[in-house]
Amino acid sequence: MATSFVERLGELLLSGSPPACIGFDPRLEALPAGLARSGDAPARIVAFARAVMPAIARHAPVLKPNVAFFECHGGPGFCAYEEVCRLARAAGLLVVGDVKRGDVGSTAEAYAKFHLDVADAVTLHPYLGADSLEPFLARCRGEGRGIFVLARTSNAGARELQDLEISGGGGRTVAEAVAVAIDRWGQGLADRFGYSPVGAVVGATWPRELARLRALMPRAWLLLPGVGAQGGKVEDLAPAFDGRGLGALVSQSRGVLQCFAPNDGDWLDRIEAALVAFAQSLRSVQSAARRPS
Amino acid sequence: MATSFVERLGELLLSGSPPACIGFDPRLEALPAGLARSGDAPARIVAFARAVMPAIARHAPVLKPNVAFFECHGGPGFCAYEEVCRLARAAGLLVVGDVKRGDVGSTAEAYAKFHLDVADAVTLHPYLGADSLEPFLARCRGEGRGIFVLARTSNAGARELQDLEISGGGGRTVAEAVAVAIDRWGQGLADRFGYSPVGAVVGATWPRELARLRALMPRAWLLLPGVGAQGGKVEDLAPAFDGRGLGALVSQSRGVLQCFAPNDGDWLDRIEAALVAFAQSLRSVQSAARRPS
Repeated sequence: MATSFVERLGELLLSGSPPACIGFDPRLEALPAGLARSGDAPARIVAFARAVMPAIARHAPVLKPNVAFFECHGGPGFCAYEEVCRLARAAGLLVVGDVKRGDVGSTAEAYAKFHLDVADAVTLHPYLGADSLEPFLARCRGEGRGIFVLARTSNAGARELQDLEISGGGGRTVAEAVAVAIDRWGQGLADRFGYSPVGAVVGATWPRELARLRALMPRAWLLLPGVGAQGGKVEDLAPAFDGRGLGALVSQSRGVLQCFAPNDGDWLDRIEAALVAFAQSLRSVQSAARRPS
Repeated sequence: MATSFVERLGELLLSGSPPACIGFDPRLEALPAGLARSGDAPARIVAFARAVMPAIARHAPVLKPNVAFFECHGGPGFCAYEEVCRLARAAGLLVVGDVKRGDVGSTAEAYAKFHLDVADAVTLHPYLGADSLEPFLARCRGEGRGIFVLARTSNAGARELQDLEISGGGGRTVAEAVAVAIDRWGQGLADRFGYSPVGAVVGATWPRELARLRALMPRAWLLLPGVGAQGGKVEDLAPAFDGRGLGALVSQSRGVLQCFAPNDGDWLDRIEAALVAFAQSLRSVQSAARRPS
Protein backbone atom coordinates (compact mmCIF):
# COMPACT_ATOMS: atom_id res chain seq x y z
CA MET A 1 0.00 0.00 0.00
CA ALA A 2 1.18 3.52 -0.75
CA THR A 3 1.85 5.74 2.26
CA SER A 4 -1.39 6.45 4.10
CA PHE A 5 -2.89 9.92 4.52
CA VAL A 6 -1.88 10.21 8.17
CA GLU A 7 1.59 8.79 7.62
CA ARG A 8 2.18 11.22 4.76
CA LEU A 9 1.02 14.03 7.05
CA GLY A 10 3.54 12.93 9.66
CA GLU A 11 6.34 12.77 7.11
CA LEU A 12 5.53 16.21 5.72
CA LEU A 13 5.44 17.90 9.12
CA LEU A 14 8.65 16.20 10.25
CA SER A 15 10.36 17.42 7.10
CA GLY A 16 9.39 21.02 7.83
CA SER A 17 5.91 21.61 6.42
CA PRO A 18 3.86 23.76 8.77
CA PRO A 19 0.78 22.11 10.33
CA ALA A 20 -1.40 24.25 8.09
CA CYS A 21 -4.69 23.35 6.51
CA ILE A 22 -6.06 25.96 4.14
CA GLY A 23 -9.85 26.12 4.08
CA PHE A 24 -11.21 26.75 0.60
CA ASP A 25 -14.74 28.15 1.09
CA PRO A 26 -15.41 30.02 -2.16
CA ARG A 27 -17.94 32.71 -1.34
CA LEU A 28 -18.67 34.45 -4.64
CA GLU A 29 -18.75 37.93 -3.16
CA ALA A 30 -15.21 37.43 -1.87
CA LEU A 31 -13.57 36.31 -5.13
CA PRO A 32 -11.23 38.73 -6.92
CA ALA A 33 -13.38 41.02 -9.04
CA GLY A 34 -11.09 40.82 -12.04
CA LEU A 35 -11.05 37.03 -12.23
CA ALA A 36 -13.07 35.28 -14.96
CA ARG A 37 -15.62 38.05 -14.70
CA SER A 38 -17.75 36.65 -17.47
CA GLY A 39 -17.87 33.05 -16.29
CA ASP A 40 -20.62 31.44 -14.23
CA ALA A 41 -20.08 30.77 -10.54
CA PRO A 42 -18.45 27.33 -10.85
CA ALA A 43 -16.09 28.58 -13.57
CA ARG A 44 -15.06 31.56 -11.43
CA ILE A 45 -14.40 29.26 -8.48
CA VAL A 46 -12.22 26.94 -10.57
CA ALA A 47 -10.32 29.90 -12.04
CA PHE A 48 -9.64 31.17 -8.51
CA ALA A 49 -8.49 27.72 -7.41
CA ARG A 50 -6.17 27.43 -10.40
CA ALA A 51 -4.63 30.82 -9.60
CA VAL A 52 -4.04 30.23 -5.89
CA MET A 53 -3.05 26.55 -5.84
CA PRO A 54 0.70 27.01 -6.51
CA ALA A 55 1.00 29.50 -3.64
CA ILE A 56 -0.95 27.26 -1.28
CA ALA A 57 1.18 24.25 -2.21
CA ARG A 58 4.34 26.26 -1.46
CA HIS A 59 3.27 27.06 2.10
CA ALA A 60 0.88 24.37 3.34
CA PRO A 61 0.51 20.59 3.06
CA VAL A 62 -3.30 20.36 3.13
CA LEU A 63 -6.28 21.95 1.37
CA LYS A 64 -9.74 21.68 2.91
CA PRO A 65 -12.46 22.64 0.41
CA ASN A 66 -15.92 22.89 1.98
CA VAL A 67 -18.34 21.22 -0.41
CA ALA A 68 -21.26 23.42 0.73
CA PHE A 69 -19.88 26.40 -1.23
CA PHE A 70 -19.79 24.29 -4.39
CA GLU A 71 -22.95 22.27 -3.88
CA CYS A 72 -25.01 25.45 -3.49
CA HIS A 73 -24.45 25.94 -7.23
CA GLY A 74 -26.01 22.56 -8.06
CA GLY A 75 -24.51 19.97 -10.39
CA PRO A 76 -22.01 22.32 -12.08
CA GLY A 77 -20.88 23.42 -8.63
CA PHE A 78 -20.34 19.81 -7.68
CA CYS A 79 -18.21 19.32 -10.80
CA ALA A 80 -16.17 22.35 -9.69
CA TYR A 81 -15.62 20.67 -6.31
CA GLU A 82 -14.17 17.62 -8.05
CA GLU A 83 -12.00 19.85 -10.22
CA VAL A 84 -10.65 21.84 -7.26
CA CYS A 85 -9.77 18.61 -5.44
CA ARG A 86 -8.03 17.38 -8.59
CA LEU A 87 -6.07 20.64 -8.98
CA ALA A 88 -4.98 20.48 -5.34
CA ARG A 89 -3.76 16.90 -5.59
CA ALA A 90 -1.99 17.66 -8.85
CA ALA A 91 -0.18 20.48 -7.03
CA GLY A 92 0.99 17.99 -4.41
CA LEU A 93 -1.46 18.93 -1.67
CA LEU A 94 -3.34 16.46 0.50
CA VAL A 95 -7.09 17.11 0.34
CA VAL A 96 -9.50 16.94 3.26
CA GLY A 97 -13.01 17.15 1.87
CA ASP A 98 -15.03 19.15 4.40
CA VAL A 99 -18.28 17.34 3.67
CA LYS A 100 -19.63 16.60 7.18
CA ARG A 101 -21.68 13.64 6.00
CA GLY A 102 -23.28 11.07 8.27
CA ASP A 103 -25.87 8.48 7.27
CA VAL A 104 -26.84 4.84 7.90
CA GLY A 105 -24.74 1.99 6.51
CA SER A 106 -25.88 1.45 2.94
CA THR A 107 -26.16 5.18 2.32
CA ALA A 108 -22.80 5.82 3.96
CA GLU A 109 -21.32 3.43 1.40
CA ALA A 110 -22.47 5.68 -1.43
CA TYR A 111 -20.95 8.72 0.29
CA ALA A 112 -17.69 6.89 1.10
CA LYS A 113 -17.27 5.65 -2.43
CA PHE A 114 -17.45 9.08 -4.01
CA HIS A 115 -15.93 11.35 -1.40
CA LEU A 116 -12.87 9.24 -0.63
CA ASP A 117 -12.18 8.93 -4.35
CA VAL A 118 -12.15 12.70 -4.72
CA ALA A 119 -10.29 13.48 -1.48
CA ASP A 120 -7.67 11.85 0.77
CA ALA A 121 -9.79 12.33 3.87
CA VAL A 122 -13.21 13.74 4.83
CA THR A 123 -14.99 15.23 7.81
CA LEU A 124 -17.92 13.23 9.25
CA HIS A 125 -20.69 13.51 11.86
CA PRO A 126 -20.48 11.19 14.88
CA TYR A 127 -24.17 11.01 15.83
CA LEU A 128 -25.03 7.72 14.10
CA GLY A 129 -22.15 5.77 15.64
CA ALA A 130 -19.54 3.35 14.36
CA ASP A 131 -21.62 1.49 11.78
CA SER A 132 -22.27 4.75 9.93
CA LEU A 133 -18.50 5.28 9.71
CA GLU A 134 -17.66 1.72 8.71
CA PRO A 135 -17.66 2.23 4.90
CA PHE A 136 -15.21 5.09 5.43
CA LEU A 137 -13.13 3.10 7.92
CA ALA A 138 -12.90 0.25 5.41
CA ARG A 139 -11.17 2.63 3.01
CA CYS A 140 -8.94 3.95 5.81
CA ARG A 141 -7.79 0.40 6.58
CA GLY A 142 -7.58 -0.77 2.99
CA GLU A 143 -6.48 2.26 1.03
CA GLY A 144 -4.87 4.58 3.54
CA ARG A 145 -7.61 7.20 3.55
CA GLY A 146 -8.47 9.30 6.61
CA ILE A 147 -11.49 10.71 8.43
CA PHE A 148 -11.98 13.55 10.89
CA VAL A 149 -15.04 13.08 13.08
CA LEU A 150 -16.72 16.15 14.58
CA ALA A 151 -15.99 16.10 18.31
CA ARG A 152 -16.15 19.73 19.44
CA THR A 153 -17.32 22.17 16.79
CA SER A 154 -16.12 25.76 16.56
CA ASN A 155 -19.52 27.51 16.67
CA ALA A 156 -20.98 29.14 19.79
CA GLY A 157 -24.03 26.84 19.60
CA ALA A 158 -21.77 23.81 20.01
CA ARG A 159 -22.40 24.03 23.75
CA GLU A 160 -26.13 23.27 23.45
CA LEU A 161 -25.73 19.51 22.98
CA GLN A 162 -21.98 18.90 23.16
CA ASP A 163 -21.74 20.27 26.73
CA LEU A 164 -24.42 18.01 28.19
CA GLU A 165 -22.88 15.95 30.97
CA ILE A 166 -22.94 12.17 30.74
CA SER A 167 -23.95 10.35 33.93
CA GLY A 168 -21.40 7.98 35.38
CA GLY A 169 -18.73 9.52 33.18
CA GLY A 170 -16.92 11.48 35.91
CA GLY A 171 -18.23 14.79 34.65
CA ARG A 172 -17.56 13.87 31.04
CA THR A 173 -19.51 15.82 28.40
CA VAL A 174 -21.09 14.54 25.18
CA ALA A 175 -18.15 16.02 23.22
CA GLU A 176 -15.74 14.14 25.48
CA ALA A 177 -17.73 10.94 25.04
CA VAL A 178 -17.39 11.41 21.29
CA ALA A 179 -13.64 11.90 21.78
CA VAL A 180 -13.49 8.59 23.67
CA ALA A 181 -15.41 6.94 20.82
CA ILE A 182 -13.00 8.43 18.27
CA ASP A 183 -10.12 6.91 20.21
CA ARG A 184 -11.95 3.56 20.24
CA TRP A 185 -12.70 3.70 16.49
CA GLY A 186 -9.01 4.23 15.77
CA GLN A 187 -7.81 1.36 17.97
CA GLY A 188 -5.32 -0.94 16.29
CA LEU A 189 -4.90 1.38 13.31
CA ALA A 190 -1.98 3.56 14.47
CA ASP A 191 0.82 4.22 11.96
CA ARG A 192 4.54 4.34 12.74
CA PHE A 193 4.12 7.82 14.25
CA GLY A 194 1.42 6.55 16.63
CA TYR A 195 -1.56 8.14 14.86
CA SER A 196 -4.66 6.43 13.51
CA PRO A 197 -6.62 7.45 10.41
CA VAL A 198 -9.54 8.39 12.68
CA GLY A 199 -8.94 12.04 13.48
CA ALA A 200 -11.16 14.59 15.17
CA VAL A 201 -12.45 18.07 14.45
CA VAL A 202 -11.97 20.26 17.53
CA GLY A 203 -12.82 23.96 17.26
CA ALA A 204 -9.88 26.26 17.93
CA THR A 205 -12.43 28.50 19.62
CA TRP A 206 -12.40 26.29 22.77
CA PRO A 207 -8.71 26.38 23.84
CA ARG A 208 -9.46 25.53 27.46
CA GLU A 209 -10.89 22.15 26.43
CA LEU A 210 -8.03 21.26 24.15
CA ALA A 211 -5.66 19.51 26.58
CA ARG A 212 -8.45 17.31 27.95
CA LEU A 213 -9.73 16.33 24.49
CA ARG A 214 -6.14 15.68 23.36
CA ALA A 215 -5.63 13.34 26.33
CA LEU A 216 -8.86 11.44 25.61
CA MET A 217 -7.80 10.64 22.04
CA PRO A 218 -3.99 10.46 21.95
CA ARG A 219 -3.99 8.60 18.62
CA ALA A 220 -6.13 11.14 16.75
CA TRP A 221 -4.92 13.90 14.47
CA LEU A 222 -6.84 17.00 15.53
CA LEU A 223 -8.17 19.26 12.81
CA LEU A 224 -8.60 22.68 14.42
CA PRO A 225 -10.83 25.14 12.55
CA GLY A 226 -12.01 28.49 13.82
CA VAL A 227 -8.86 30.63 14.02
CA GLY A 228 -9.19 34.15 12.68
CA ALA A 229 -12.74 35.17 11.70
CA GLN A 230 -14.30 32.85 14.28
CA GLY A 231 -12.09 34.11 17.10
CA GLY A 232 -9.69 31.22 17.76
CA LYS A 233 -6.03 32.14 18.37
CA VAL A 234 -3.13 30.10 16.99
CA GLU A 235 -1.01 30.76 20.09
CA ASP A 236 -3.56 28.91 22.27
CA LEU A 237 -3.21 25.67 20.36
CA ALA A 238 0.09 24.26 21.62
CA PRO A 239 -1.65 21.55 23.72
CA ALA A 240 -2.89 19.97 20.49
CA PHE A 241 0.66 19.03 19.39
CA ASP A 242 2.94 16.30 20.63
CA GLY A 243 6.62 16.79 21.45
CA ARG A 244 7.59 16.20 17.83
CA GLY A 245 5.19 18.89 16.60
CA LEU A 246 2.82 16.27 15.20
CA GLY A 247 -0.83 15.49 15.91
CA ALA A 248 -2.63 18.65 14.87
CA LEU A 249 -3.54 20.60 11.75
CA VAL A 250 -4.73 24.16 12.16
CA SER A 251 -7.24 25.27 9.57
CA GLN A 252 -7.77 28.81 8.39
CA SER A 253 -10.23 29.82 5.68
CA ARG A 254 -11.26 33.46 5.50
CA GLY A 255 -7.99 34.72 7.00
CA VAL A 256 -6.04 33.38 4.03
CA LEU A 257 -8.16 33.04 0.89
CA GLN A 258 -10.39 35.99 1.74
CA CYS A 259 -7.68 38.29 3.11
CA PHE A 260 -8.23 40.87 0.36
CA ALA A 261 -11.00 43.10 -0.94
CA PRO A 262 -12.49 41.98 -4.28
CA ASN A 263 -11.02 45.00 -6.06
CA ASP A 264 -7.46 44.64 -4.71
CA GLY A 265 -5.21 44.22 -7.73
CA ASP A 266 -2.53 42.55 -5.61
CA TRP A 267 -4.79 39.87 -4.16
CA LEU A 268 -2.43 37.01 -5.04
CA ASP A 269 0.48 38.73 -3.26
CA ARG A 270 -1.74 39.31 -0.25
CA ILE A 271 -2.72 35.63 -0.17
CA GLU A 272 0.91 34.57 -0.37
CA ALA A 273 1.80 36.94 2.47
CA ALA A 274 -1.08 35.56 4.57
CA LEU A 275 0.10 32.01 3.87
CA VAL A 276 3.63 32.88 4.96
CA ALA A 277 2.40 34.59 8.13
CA PHE A 278 0.08 31.68 8.96
CA ALA A 279 2.88 29.13 8.47
CA GLN A 280 5.18 31.22 10.66
CA SER A 281 2.67 31.48 13.48
CA LEU A 282 2.11 27.72 13.33
CA ARG A 283 5.83 26.98 13.52
CA SER A 284 5.99 29.11 16.66
CA VAL A 285 3.19 27.21 18.33
CA GLN A 286 4.79 23.90 17.32
CA SER A 287 8.04 25.06 18.93
CA ALA A 288 6.15 26.02 22.06
CA ALA A 289 4.73 22.49 22.14
CA ARG A 290 8.22 21.04 21.81
CA ARG A 291 9.61 22.95 24.80
CA PRO A 292 9.25 21.01 28.04
CA SER A 293 6.96 23.15 30.18
CA MET B 1 -47.55 33.23 2.58
CA ALA B 2 -48.65 30.08 0.79
CA THR B 3 -49.57 27.11 2.96
CA SER B 4 -46.50 25.86 4.81
CA PHE B 5 -45.00 22.41 4.36
CA VAL B 6 -46.34 21.10 7.67
CA GLU B 7 -49.76 22.67 7.24
CA ARG B 8 -50.06 21.15 3.77
CA LEU B 9 -49.07 17.80 5.26
CA GLY B 10 -51.84 18.13 7.84
CA GLU B 11 -54.40 19.04 5.19
CA LEU B 12 -53.40 16.13 2.95
CA LEU B 13 -53.61 13.55 5.73
CA LEU B 14 -56.94 14.89 7.00
CA SER B 15 -58.33 14.64 3.48
CA GLY B 16 -57.38 10.98 3.23
CA SER B 17 -53.78 10.76 2.06
CA PRO B 18 -51.94 8.01 3.89
CA PRO B 19 -49.03 9.11 6.12
CA ALA B 20 -46.63 7.66 3.56
CA CYS B 21 -43.22 8.94 2.61
CA ILE B 22 -41.60 7.09 -0.26
CA GLY B 23 -37.83 6.89 -0.03
CA PHE B 24 -36.14 7.27 -3.39
CA ASP B 25 -32.66 5.73 -3.01
CA PRO B 26 -31.67 4.86 -6.57
CA ARG B 27 -29.18 2.00 -6.32
CA LEU B 28 -28.14 1.28 -9.90
CA GLU B 29 -28.16 -2.48 -9.48
CA ALA B 30 -31.80 -2.32 -8.42
CA LEU B 31 -33.14 -0.30 -11.36
CA PRO B 32 -35.30 -2.08 -13.97
CA ALA B 33 -32.92 -3.70 -16.46
CA GLY B 34 -34.93 -2.61 -19.46
CA LEU B 35 -35.01 1.07 -18.58
CA ALA B 36 -32.77 3.49 -20.48
CA ARG B 37 -30.24 0.72 -20.81
CA SER B 38 -27.87 2.83 -22.87
CA GLY B 39 -27.88 5.94 -20.70
CA ASP B 40 -25.36 6.84 -18.02
CA ALA B 41 -26.22 6.46 -14.35
CA PRO B 42 -27.87 9.87 -13.83
CA ALA B 43 -29.95 9.46 -17.01
CA ARG B 44 -31.15 6.03 -15.89
CA ILE B 45 -32.11 7.39 -12.48
CA VAL B 46 -34.11 10.24 -14.00
CA ALA B 47 -35.83 7.83 -16.43
CA PHE B 48 -36.81 5.63 -13.49
CA ALA B 49 -38.11 8.65 -11.55
CA ARG B 50 -40.13 9.80 -14.54
CA ALA B 51 -41.70 6.35 -14.89
CA VAL B 52 -42.65 5.87 -11.22
CA MET B 53 -43.67 9.39 -10.23
CA PRO B 54 -47.35 9.18 -11.34
CA ALA B 55 -47.89 5.99 -9.33
CA ILE B 56 -46.16 7.45 -6.26
CA ALA B 57 -48.25 10.61 -6.50
CA ARG B 58 -51.45 8.51 -6.64
CA HIS B 59 -50.69 6.73 -3.37
CA ALA B 60 -48.46 8.94 -1.21
CA PRO B 61 -48.12 12.63 -0.36
CA VAL B 62 -44.33 12.79 0.11
CA LEU B 63 -41.19 11.71 -1.74
CA LYS B 64 -37.89 11.50 0.11
CA PRO B 65 -34.93 11.25 -2.29
CA ASN B 66 -31.63 10.52 -0.55
CA VAL B 67 -29.03 12.75 -2.15
CA ALA B 68 -26.19 10.28 -1.41
CA PHE B 69 -27.34 8.01 -4.25
CA PHE B 70 -27.18 10.93 -6.67
CA GLU B 71 -24.10 12.67 -5.32
CA CYS B 72 -22.04 9.48 -5.66
CA HIS B 73 -22.26 10.09 -9.42
CA GLY B 74 -20.67 13.54 -9.10
CA GLY B 75 -21.98 16.70 -10.74
CA PRO B 76 -24.30 14.98 -13.25
CA GLY B 77 -25.72 12.95 -10.36
CA PHE B 78 -26.39 16.15 -8.48
CA CYS B 79 -28.23 17.53 -11.52
CA ALA B 80 -30.32 14.34 -11.51
CA TYR B 81 -31.20 15.00 -7.84
CA GLU B 82 -32.52 18.43 -8.78
CA GLU B 83 -34.46 16.95 -11.69
CA VAL B 84 -36.04 14.21 -9.55
CA CYS B 85 -37.13 16.80 -6.99
CA ARG B 86 -38.59 18.90 -9.80
CA LEU B 87 -40.46 15.91 -11.27
CA ALA B 88 -41.87 15.04 -7.85
CA ARG B 89 -43.12 18.55 -7.16
CA ALA B 90 -44.57 18.79 -10.67
CA ALA B 91 -46.51 15.58 -9.90
CA GLY B 92 -47.95 17.25 -6.80
CA LEU B 93 -45.75 15.55 -4.23
CA LEU B 94 -44.11 17.26 -1.29
CA VAL B 95 -40.36 16.64 -1.28
CA VAL B 96 -38.22 15.93 1.77
CA GLY B 97 -34.59 16.08 0.72
CA ASP B 98 -32.78 13.43 2.74
CA VAL B 99 -29.51 15.33 2.87
CA LYS B 100 -28.49 15.03 6.55
CA ARG B 101 -26.38 18.18 6.43
CA GLY B 102 -25.03 19.97 9.49
CA ASP B 103 -22.39 22.70 9.51
CA VAL B 104 -21.54 26.00 11.22
CA GLY B 105 -23.52 29.17 10.52
CA SER B 106 -22.09 30.68 7.36
CA THR B 107 -21.70 27.27 5.73
CA ALA B 108 -25.18 26.24 6.81
CA GLU B 109 -26.46 29.26 4.91
CA ALA B 110 -25.01 27.90 1.68
CA TYR B 111 -26.66 24.52 2.31
CA ALA B 112 -29.99 26.09 3.31
CA LYS B 113 -30.12 28.29 0.24
CA PHE B 114 -29.73 25.44 -2.21
CA HIS B 115 -31.46 22.55 -0.49
CA LEU B 116 -34.60 24.39 0.55
CA ASP B 117 -34.97 25.75 -2.97
CA VAL B 118 -34.90 22.24 -4.39
CA ALA B 119 -37.05 20.59 -1.70
CA ASP B 120 -39.88 21.55 0.68
CA ALA B 121 -38.04 20.17 3.68
CA VAL B 122 -34.71 18.52 4.51
CA THR B 123 -33.20 16.22 7.11
CA LEU B 124 -30.43 17.69 9.31
CA HIS B 125 -27.91 16.64 11.97
CA PRO B 126 -28.42 18.02 15.50
CA TYR B 127 -24.83 17.88 16.80
CA LEU B 128 -23.86 21.52 16.16
CA GLY B 129 -26.91 22.97 17.91
CA ALA B 130 -29.43 25.70 17.14
CA ASP B 131 -27.14 28.19 15.41
CA SER B 132 -26.28 25.58 12.76
CA LEU B 133 -30.01 25.19 12.06
CA GLU B 134 -30.80 28.89 12.03
CA PRO B 135 -30.44 29.47 8.26
CA PHE B 136 -32.89 26.62 7.73
CA LEU B 137 -35.21 27.85 10.49
CA ALA B 138 -35.25 31.29 8.87
CA ARG B 139 -36.71 29.71 5.74
CA CYS B 140 -39.17 27.69 7.84
CA ARG B 141 -40.44 30.88 9.47
CA GLY B 142 -40.33 33.04 6.35
CA GLU B 143 -41.22 30.69 3.53
CA GLY B 144 -43.01 27.77 5.12
CA ARG B 145 -40.24 25.22 4.64
CA GLY B 146 -39.65 22.34 7.04
CA ILE B 147 -36.79 20.44 8.65
CA PHE B 148 -36.50 17.00 10.25
CA VAL B 149 -33.66 16.79 12.74
CA LEU B 150 -32.08 13.40 13.46
CA ALA B 151 -33.15 12.39 16.97
CA ARG B 152 -33.05 8.60 17.03
CA THR B 153 -31.60 6.99 13.91
CA SER B 154 -32.73 3.62 12.58
CA ASN B 155 -29.33 1.87 12.49
CA ALA B 156 -28.14 -0.59 15.15
CA GLY B 157 -25.12 1.62 15.89
CA ALA B 158 -27.45 4.44 16.93
CA ARG B 159 -27.15 3.17 20.51
CA GLU B 160 -23.43 3.94 20.77
CA LEU B 161 -23.83 7.68 21.34
CA GLN B 162 -27.59 8.25 21.35
CA ASP B 163 -28.14 5.94 24.35
CA LEU B 164 -25.63 7.66 26.63
CA GLU B 165 -27.45 8.86 29.73
CA ILE B 166 -27.41 12.57 30.59
CA SER B 167 -26.73 13.38 34.23
CA GLY B 168 -29.44 15.29 36.05
CA GLY B 169 -31.86 14.46 33.27
CA GLY B 170 -33.90 11.87 35.15
CA GLY B 171 -32.44 9.00 33.15
CA ARG B 172 -32.76 10.91 29.89
CA THR B 173 -30.56 9.76 27.01
CA VAL B 174 -28.73 11.88 24.44
CA ALA B 175 -31.45 11.06 21.88
CA GLU B 176 -34.08 12.25 24.35
CA ALA B 177 -32.10 15.42 25.02
CA VAL B 178 -32.09 16.02 21.27
CA ALA B 179 -35.87 15.47 21.26
CA VAL B 180 -36.24 18.11 23.99
CA ALA B 181 -34.08 20.48 21.91
CA ILE B 182 -36.22 19.80 18.83
CA ASP B 183 -39.30 20.75 20.84
CA ARG B 184 -37.53 23.92 21.98
CA TRP B 185 -36.43 24.85 18.45
CA GLY B 186 -40.04 24.59 17.28
CA GLN B 187 -41.47 26.72 20.07
CA GLY B 188 -43.82 29.46 18.89
CA LEU B 189 -43.94 28.07 15.37
CA ALA B 190 -46.90 25.69 15.58
CA ASP B 191 -49.45 25.80 12.75
CA ARG B 192 -53.24 25.51 13.11
CA PHE B 193 -52.90 21.75 13.62
CA GLY B 194 -50.45 22.25 16.48
CA TYR B 195 -47.31 21.20 14.60
CA SER B 196 -44.12 23.18 14.09
CA PRO B 197 -41.85 23.06 11.02
CA VAL B 198 -39.16 21.48 13.19
CA GLY B 199 -39.78 17.76 12.86
CA ALA B 200 -37.69 14.80 13.96
CA VAL B 201 -36.29 11.65 12.41
CA VAL B 202 -37.03 8.68 14.66
CA GLY B 203 -36.11 5.21 13.44
CA ALA B 204 -39.07 2.84 13.16
CA THR B 205 -36.63 0.19 14.38
CA TRP B 206 -37.00 1.42 18.00
CA PRO B 207 -40.75 1.07 18.67
CA ARG B 208 -40.34 0.85 22.44
CA GLU B 209 -38.88 4.37 22.54
CA LEU B 210 -41.54 5.90 20.35
CA ALA B 211 -44.13 6.91 22.94
CA ARG B 212 -41.52 8.60 25.14
CA LEU B 213 -39.95 10.51 22.23
CA ARG B 214 -43.43 11.50 20.99
CA ALA B 215 -44.23 12.91 24.45
CA LEU B 216 -40.99 14.89 24.61
CA MET B 217 -41.71 16.68 21.33
CA PRO B 218 -45.50 16.94 20.94
CA ARG B 219 -45.24 19.65 18.28
CA ALA B 220 -42.88 17.73 15.98
CA TRP B 221 -43.85 15.74 12.92
CA LEU B 222 -41.99 12.44 13.23
CA LEU B 223 -40.40 11.03 10.10
CA LEU B 224 -40.07 7.29 10.71
CA PRO B 225 -37.63 5.44 8.43
CA GLY B 226 -36.55 1.84 8.81
CA VAL B 227 -39.67 -0.23 8.10
CA GLY B 228 -39.14 -3.23 5.85
CA ALA B 229 -35.52 -3.98 4.96
CA GLN B 230 -34.21 -2.50 8.22
CA GLY B 231 -36.67 -4.48 10.36
CA GLY B 232 -39.16 -1.86 11.57
CA LYS B 233 -42.86 -2.87 11.56
CA VAL B 234 -45.64 -0.50 10.56
CA GLU B 235 -48.02 -1.97 13.14
CA ASP B 236 -45.73 -0.86 15.98
CA LEU B 237 -45.92 2.80 15.03
CA ALA B 238 -49.35 3.84 16.35
CA PRO B 239 -47.82 5.82 19.27
CA ALA B 240 -46.33 8.25 16.75
CA PHE B 241 -49.77 9.49 15.64
CA ASP B 242 -52.19 11.80 17.39
CA GLY B 243 -55.94 11.13 17.71
CA ARG B 244 -56.56 12.74 14.31
CA GLY B 245 -54.03 10.48 12.61
CA LEU B 246 -51.58 13.36 12.23
CA GLY B 247 -48.04 13.86 13.46
CA ALA B 248 -46.11 11.10 11.73
CA LEU B 249 -44.88 10.10 8.30
CA VAL B 250 -43.70 6.55 7.79
CA SER B 251 -40.94 6.20 5.22
CA GLN B 252 -40.26 3.12 3.15
CA SER B 253 -37.55 2.90 0.51
CA ARG B 254 -36.45 -0.55 -0.64
CA GLY B 255 -39.84 -2.14 0.16
CA VAL B 256 -41.52 0.01 -2.48
CA LEU B 257 -39.13 1.20 -5.19
CA GLN B 258 -36.95 -1.91 -5.02
CA CYS B 259 -39.73 -4.46 -4.59
CA PHE B 260 -38.89 -6.16 -7.90
CA ALA B 261 -35.99 -7.97 -9.53
CA PRO B 262 -34.23 -5.95 -12.26
CA ASN B 263 -35.50 -8.34 -14.95
CA ASP B 264 -39.16 -8.33 -13.89
CA GLY B 265 -41.13 -7.03 -16.84
CA ASP B 266 -44.03 -5.99 -14.59
CA TRP B 267 -41.95 -3.86 -12.24
CA LEU B 268 -44.24 -0.86 -12.48
CA ASP B 269 -47.28 -2.98 -11.53
CA ARG B 270 -45.32 -4.39 -8.62
CA ILE B 271 -44.41 -0.92 -7.42
CA GLU B 272 -48.02 0.21 -7.63
CA ALA B 273 -49.13 -2.87 -5.67
CA ALA B 274 -46.46 -2.18 -3.03
CA LEU B 275 -47.63 1.44 -2.79
CA VAL B 276 -51.23 0.34 -2.32
CA ALA B 277 -50.26 -2.21 0.34
CA PHE B 278 -48.09 0.31 2.16
CA ALA B 279 -50.86 2.93 2.16
CA GLN B 280 -53.32 0.34 3.44
CA SER B 281 -51.06 -0.74 6.30
CA LEU B 282 -50.55 2.90 7.26
CA ARG B 283 -54.29 3.60 7.31
CA SER B 284 -54.70 0.67 9.70
CA VAL B 285 -52.10 1.98 12.09
CA GLN B 286 -53.64 5.45 11.91
CA SER B 287 -57.00 3.93 12.82
CA ALA B 288 -55.39 2.11 15.72
CA ALA B 289 -54.04 5.45 16.93
CA ARG B 290 -57.52 6.98 16.71
CA ARG B 291 -59.13 4.28 18.90
CA PRO B 292 -59.09 5.21 22.56
CA SER B 293 -56.96 2.53 24.18
